[in-house]
Amino acid sequence: MKPFSCAVVGASGMVGQNFIKILEERNTPLSKLYLFASARSAGRAVRFKGGELAIEELTHSVFDRGIDMALFGVEAEVSREYAPIAAKKGCVVVDNSSAWRLDPEVPLVVPEVNGEDIPLHKGIIANPNCCAAPAVVALNPLHKAYTVKRIVFSTYQSVSGAGVGGWEDLERTVKGEAPQHFPYPIAYNVIPHIDRFYEDGYTGEEAKLIAETKKMLHAPEIKATATTVRVPVFTGHSLSVNVSFEKAFDLAEARKLLAEAPGVRLQDDPARNVYPMPITAAGTDLVYVGRVRRDESFENSLNLWVVADNVRKGAATNAVQIAERVMGC
Amino acid sequence: MKPFSCAVVGASGMVGQNFIKILEERNTPLSKLYLFASARSAGRAVRFKGGELAIEELTHSVFDRGIDMALFGVEAEVSREYAPIAAKKGCVVVDNSSAWRLDPEVPLVVPEVNGEDIPLHKGIIANPNCCAAPAVVALNPLHKAYTVKRIVFSTYQSVSGAGVGGWEDLERTVKGEAPQHFPYPIAYNVIPHIDRFYEDGYTGEEAKLIAETKKMLHAPEIKATATTVRVPVFTGHSLSVNVSFEKAFDLAEARKLLAEAPGVRLQDDPARNVYPMPITAAGTDLVYVGRVRRDESFENSLNLWVVADNVRKGAATNAVQIAERVMGC
Repeated sequence: MKPFSCAVVGASGMVGQNFIKILEERNTPLSKLYLFASARSAGRAVRFKGGELAIEELTHSVFDRGIDMALFGVEAEVSREYAPIAAKKGCVVVDNSSAWRLDPEVPLVVPEVNGEDIPLHKGIIANPNCCAAPAVVALNPLHKAYTVKRIVFSTYQSVSGAGVGGWEDLERTVKGEAPQHFPYPIAYNVIPHIDRFYEDGYTGEEAKLIAETKKMLHAPEIKATATTVRVPVFTGHSLSVNVSFEKAFDLAEARKLLAEAPGVRLQDDPARNVYPMPITAAGTDLVYVGRVRRDESFENSLNLWVVADNVRKGAATNAVQIAERVMGC
Repeated sequence: MKPFSCAVVGASGMVGQNFIKILEERNTPLSKLYLFASARSAGRAVRFKGGELAIEELTHSVFDRGIDMALFGVEAEVSREYAPIAAKKGCVVVDNSSAWRLDPEVPLVVPEVNGEDIPLHKGIIANPNCCAAPAVVALNPLHKAYTVKRIVFSTYQSVSGAGVGGWEDLERTVKGEAPQHFPYPIAYNVIPHIDRFYEDGYTGEEAKLIAETKKMLHAPEIKATATTVRVPVFTGHSLSVNVSFEKAFDLAEARKLLAEAPGVRLQDDPARNVYPMPITAAGTDLVYVGRVRRDESFENSLNLWVVADNVRKGAATNAVQIAERVMGC
């Protein structure tokens, strides 16, 4: 495991902060860590492994320093500007925004699911949407065995998926203060609106979940639909997944496939109140799957309840896992 | 409109209190209101229309007084004991528990949907589950036009659906205190567990939603599945509904049918952030429908987002509406 130099781009944001935290936690072998953000945050000190690192202003020239990898936790438009510059200068970018995810030249990766796509990169690798990542970790072992035909997703997404602004809005509105981030108070409410609305009535979040699931499973023929909903939870996205397969399945075998799948923890013992929940998934890197039930209303169908920490496996941990694979760790 | 005598059975519970509140609000023509509850609550005074009424202990003999109607807001086992006694003594019972809902001799009614079933009663009429009621109000106009074939429900249910204990558990766990009602803290969490678990992995709540929807739509041939989930909301149940029809539909026509359906308020203008939410549905008696989108992943399919006040239209208001119809109001 050769140490590599790594930049965190967007180091002051929620995802960026989590990149730093996860690099430290995993003790990823780094020769040097650079922190970049907009001019507003430049100069700010960030704790890392007992020391302190200063955030530097992000400019085109920062990538002239021969940096091996960069973890981007910035808005899509910032990524569209800076990721190609970094890549051109030999720095492999793992980008957490939606900017590159559906680009046919860019691998979109969850290492446990389609790690084989990583070497196909041309300088940029995309990190999936925070619901799509757990969705494919849970669906992949079943897809391999039974071939997914159709999926109906309904999500229960935490406010940290909307970054610091979302987090603060839950704190604020629980106290009865007016929202500043979401259009309505999220405290004691659910809001069926994540990302912007398209002409067809779907949101960007719904479109991402559908398209990214198909891309990572290498199965453009899958039919899928989604309703994505914000709930008053700080950390942890939950998904109600109804999936129909091409082939017949045995329920006990499906459960066994899930239990043995990489990155999955089967939590499915209803008699003992064991099922996935955001409060137990938060702070961990696994995808929890439970409430595994045959759906008798349609042939070869199954209901699943899937929960993961959206900031970790849904974002930062997955990106660091990709970076480690690229660097041969 | 001839005034009638009415009893509220379970007058100290959350549903019972709401029966009293709704009777007052609607100014339902009453010649006399009796309040019954267990010995524990007997003697307690309850405000009604500027005066006070004392709660009396529920015994078999209270129904000897020639009471016209009784609204039952008690546990299923209490209802199984007392409803037949009341009915035998000529008092028509509207029961909010699950005790009688699937009894073929008992009409299960949402007046806007299957009010024609009311006169078929033999002394007991069942009030539906708090998710099934809004589900059928939203689905009925579409079912009449296009014939529902299959439904996938995922719910977002408020703590008031679990009564006073659920409400207090949200207040308690938001303050960081341990839960006393739910098996886990509901604050900042979602719990995929409502009612008890059956052998097949489904919960009682899921089974009720499926069976009651079919019964009220008079369509036992409908295929349906459900995942029911508790969310940290005080009042208002939300449902993500994916529905497939026998017949092709026009989206604009489907929207028009919903807009004109009795009991429905279409809230579907995403460009202006108009969609149903618990905080706007709470305190009202309508079923709000929005996020109406064609689901291209399956033939003749539609996604809907449905929200209603579970204590009102999902319970108390619907029961009072049934009582008024029985009494010819």
